[in-house]
Amino acid sequence: MIPNLDTLMYWIGQSAVVLMAAAGVLEAGRKRFDLFGMAIVALAAALGGGTVRDLLLGRPVFWVADQTYLMCALGAALVTFFLARVFVLPARLFLIPDAAGLALFTVTGTKAALVWGAPWLVASIMGVTTGVVGGILRDVLCNEEPLVFRGTLYATASWTGALVLIGLLDLDVDARIAAVSAGSAIFLLRVAAIRWGIGLPRFRAKGA
Amino acid sequence: MIPNLDTLMYWIGQSAVVLMAAAGVLEAGRKRFDLFGMAIVALAAALGGGTVRDLLLGRPVFWVADQTYLMCALGAALVTFFLARVFVLPARLFLIPDAAGLALFTVTGTKAALVWGAPWLVASIMGVTTGVVGGILRDVLCNEEPLVFRGTLYATASWTGALVLIGLLDLDVDARIAAVSAGSAIFLLRVAAIRWGIGLPRFRAKGA
Amino acid sequence: MIPNLDTLMYWIGQSAVVLMAAAGVLEAGRKRFDLFGMAIVALAAALGGGTVRDLLLGRPVFWVADQTYLMCALGAALVTFFLARVFVLPARLFLIPDAAGLALFTVTGTKAALVWGAPWLVASIMGVTTGVVGGILRDVLCNEEPLVFRGTLYATASWTGALVLIGLLDLDVDARIAAVSAGSAIFLLRVAAIRWGIGLPRFRAKGA
Repeated sequence: MIPNLDTLMYWIGQSAVVLMAAAGVLEAGRKRFDLFGMAIVALAAALGGGTVRDLLLGRPVFWVADQTYLMCALGAALVTFFLARVFVLPARLFLIPDAAGLALFTVTGTKAALVWGAPWLVASIMGVTTGVVGGILRDVLCNEEPLVFRGTLYATASWTGALVLIGLLDLDVDARIAAVSAGSAIFLLRVAAIRWGIGLPRFRAKGA
Repeated sequence: MIPNLDTLMYWIGQSAVVLMAAAGVLEAGRKRFDLFGMAIVALAAALGGGTVRDLLLGRPVFWVADQTYLMCALGAALVTFFLARVFVLPARLFLIPDAAGLALFTVTGTKAALVWGAPWLVASIMGVTTGVVGGILRDVLCNEEPLVFRGTLYATASWTGALVLIGLLDLDVDARIAAVSAGSAIFLLRVAAIRWGIGLPRFRAKGA
Repeated sequence: MIPNLDTLMYWIGQSAVVLMAAAGVLEAGRKRFDLFGMAIVALAAALGGGTVRDLLLGRPVFWVADQTYLMCALGAALVTFFLARVFVLPARLFLIPDAAGLALFTVTGTKAALVWGAPWLVASIMGVTTGVVGGILRDVLCNEEPLVFRGTLYATASWTGALVLIGLLDLDVDARIAAVSAGSAIFLLRVAAIRWGIGLPRFRAKGA
């Protein structure tokens, strides 16, 4: 059981890296970066969140310890780069792999922090960090306001899912069911928020 | 004596986190981020400087080891968020908690580096890092030129205070007196610089 | 032999810090930052790449362990600052120290990662990280689109050089000859790319 779950989480992590690298390329494409600049943005988007989580927890950085992540991210970036030159890709397309990557990274990040022994609030923040920091880095490198702040339940979906995962695990739900439930919740919340423009209340400083 | 000082430094640290989180919310408010985007900016502002210091020194990150900081930062962000919706807060208000946070973080950061055994120049840079990196992260996330670079003695006040603290401790002044003197010097320098528009000479490249 | 090489690499590292700090000041000058803001940009440019490399590898951060780097960076920043006030420096001048710093940092960064035991792909990425992250930080702090993404073979030159170094070392070429060859390749590629406007194919999303 537990080795199966570990294997599942490992491949979920690799899939998230692939999705976020693809989203990074589609976003960088709007800026007309060259092939290598684009690869750096893709790597930052795909590996940034997990890297910050590992640094904060004091663990070895996941892609330094296992080159497979690096190869998946670079491969996905190249494939997306050439696909986007051949096919007409709608500008908003990157929102879907980005939402899926957000869900997968949040689940693996929260799980990794819990396994490491972090208390619940820290673990949920580590899940959000793993999920959103890659996208923030991507947008900062592209000199844009981070997507995560542009409303429509981005980090909120991530944090909700992290808390769902922690809650279900605390109720002794099977770890795979908990992971799938939390991940689906994040993806559906995010996609619904994009589709219907749902957002949290905006802050408006009086007199600003 | 020494436990008292440790307790004092601990609560000074928590106060700085509260002040910087509040300043982060007031700054993010000008960008109309949503509640969660704002919370991330507040966390980056409040915890960013100390996090970078701990990573550079190779220490466990302070808020991962002690959840209280995380709770203080999130609580302060929420309270400021709702206060700002009810009361008319002048746009420049965030400069005062920001100045106080700068003073408190510089003092605790320098102290932490000295306790860790860093030589004086590194310790002073760690104090400045603790003091200014949170504000830099806040401004970079808001896609603005960092306040720290907009003249009026920001990092300069921080570095001066760090050197005053190191100098006083070297002269065997009581550690609490040294901390209060250095902190007051930073706060007063910064507030005076804002009030009277004092700044360092600007760089102007000939022919630029 | 080996101590000589270590000494050579050490002074190459210090030279790269000096060059990148100077390039940072010249870049920050276009933004009219004050003396201290400029010093922070110079430090980020000079020390940022190696710092990120050391954090990723889990090594002690080089300039925390050895204050000399910090002193070289601050000294170079001050000298450049005052030179630029006295002499007319052309706006594009910073491209030359930047290219030299890129070459030197890539070589030392790749070497450090190999010595640490990193596999080849990770080692080459560490070389690129050491070479380009400082410049990225400099440009992000100046709120500009990173130079590294503005075409003309920036990171590409760095990665080519890292792979040349790893390849030559694998062929048992003398370590000093390998280092000099790789560094020269990076510098010449980059300068030629600036001179003749050579770049990689730009990404252009159809329908974007």
